[in-house]
Amino acid sequence: MKLYGYFRSSASYRVRIALNLKGLAYQQIALHLRRGEQRTDESLARNPQGLVPVLKLGDGTCLTQSSAILEYLEECHPEPALLPSRLEERAVVRALAQLICCEIQPLNNTRVLAYLGQELGHEGPVPERWSRHWIAEGFAALESLVECSSEGRYCYGDRVGLADVCLVPQWYNAERVACDLAPYPRLTAVVERLRALPAFAAAAPEVQPDAE
Amino acid sequence: MKLYGYFRSSASYRVRIALNLKGLAYQQIALHLRRGEQRTDESLARNPQGLVPVLKLGDGTCLTQSSAILEYLEECHPEPALLPSRLEERAVVRALAQLICCEIQPLNNTRVLAYLGQELGHEGPVPERWSRHWIAEGFAALESLVECSSEGRYCYGDRVGLADVCLVPQWYNAERVACDLAPYPRLTAVVERLRALPAFAAAAPEVQPDAE
Repeated sequence: MKLYGYFRSSASYRVRIALNLKGLAYQQIALHLRRGEQRTDESLARNPQGLVPVLKLGDGTCLTQSSAILEYLEECHPEPALLPSRLEERAVVRALAQLICCEIQPLNNTRVLAYLGQELGHEGPVPERWSRHWIAEGFAALESLVECSSEGRYCYGDRVGLADVCLVPQWYNAERVACDLAPYPRLTAVVERLRALPAFAAAAPEVQPDAE
Repeated sequence: MKLYGYFRSSASYRVRIALNLKGLAYQQIALHLRRGEQRTDESLARNPQGLVPVLKLGDGTCLTQSSAILEYLEECHPEPALLPSRLEERAVVRALAQLICCEIQPLNNTRVLAYLGQELGHEGPVPERWSRHWIAEGFAALESLVECSSEGRYCYGDRVGLADVCLVPQWYNAERVACDLAPYPRLTAVVERLRALPAFAAAAPEVQPDAE
């Protein structure tokens, strides 16, 4: 498998973690987002949306959208499982993951911040304030949900799961924009435990081949 | 099952369509978003994020995040299936759905448009221009993906699926902000066919009990 991604892209980071957790070998191909390498003809042929990550399978099929890729990996390589077996619990874990993937990350990616600057004229502190606002809204809800749903070591119980795969990249992003993370002691503890795991450590942006 | 939603919320609309497609009975409870009914103590106990939809199961479990709810319904009530059986095809359909749920809708919901107005001082045409921009970006990619992946009647082949469930509510939203939909003839044709189906017609915002 080939993973087309970018070291800082949190959606690419999610897929790296999942591939590592499942013990799957993959080749990384870096596309430099600021240089627009995700928008060359070759890249657009793999993903007309011009986004990363793209997971290219052995048969040439190109999978896009990190949430869809994570579900594919879970279905294709069920062990170790990223979702519990009981249906209601699967829904709870997926909701924690989607809270990050649908409510936080989409508001803070490069193209949105670029639009705030280039189209709406907000330079300087506004884009970072914008990012911090949506991260804080999401993390506040997540902190409360994680507290309700789990007495465990991770986002949901004592097994690493889909929500954890999404949390760590979002946390990295929050640190980059200097979010105040003090209001989230439970998430802080969960992230600390996760980052110590080899699958997460090996997926960290700073140790990727294209890290700057 | 009880569905806490709002007639115009496109995430609630997705869940109504899926429940109808699967032939499941549900009671609708409307929360008026502009009056803040999703943020009362009672609502926050169901969903600390203060968002709709929430699907309350018979045992009292409250499911949140429409994508997680749709996956739950698919796992719990597999027929009629909203996803193909082959793993790679499931990933393609999920990616089409996530393109809408992660790349278009989160940028255009009420709280984001309110922030543009109240925090960044953009009144008048800017929030609508913002919405139209992200819808156009997403629909352009979707038009091309749907053309590549399907010669069928719907987003992917001749069976109604998860991507269709997400497309129709996003189309409704696009019409509300007067998006130019002429560049998407394939999506236009798919939406027209979908809207004629009883499960979609019965889920339309204008026929909900709380429609204004």
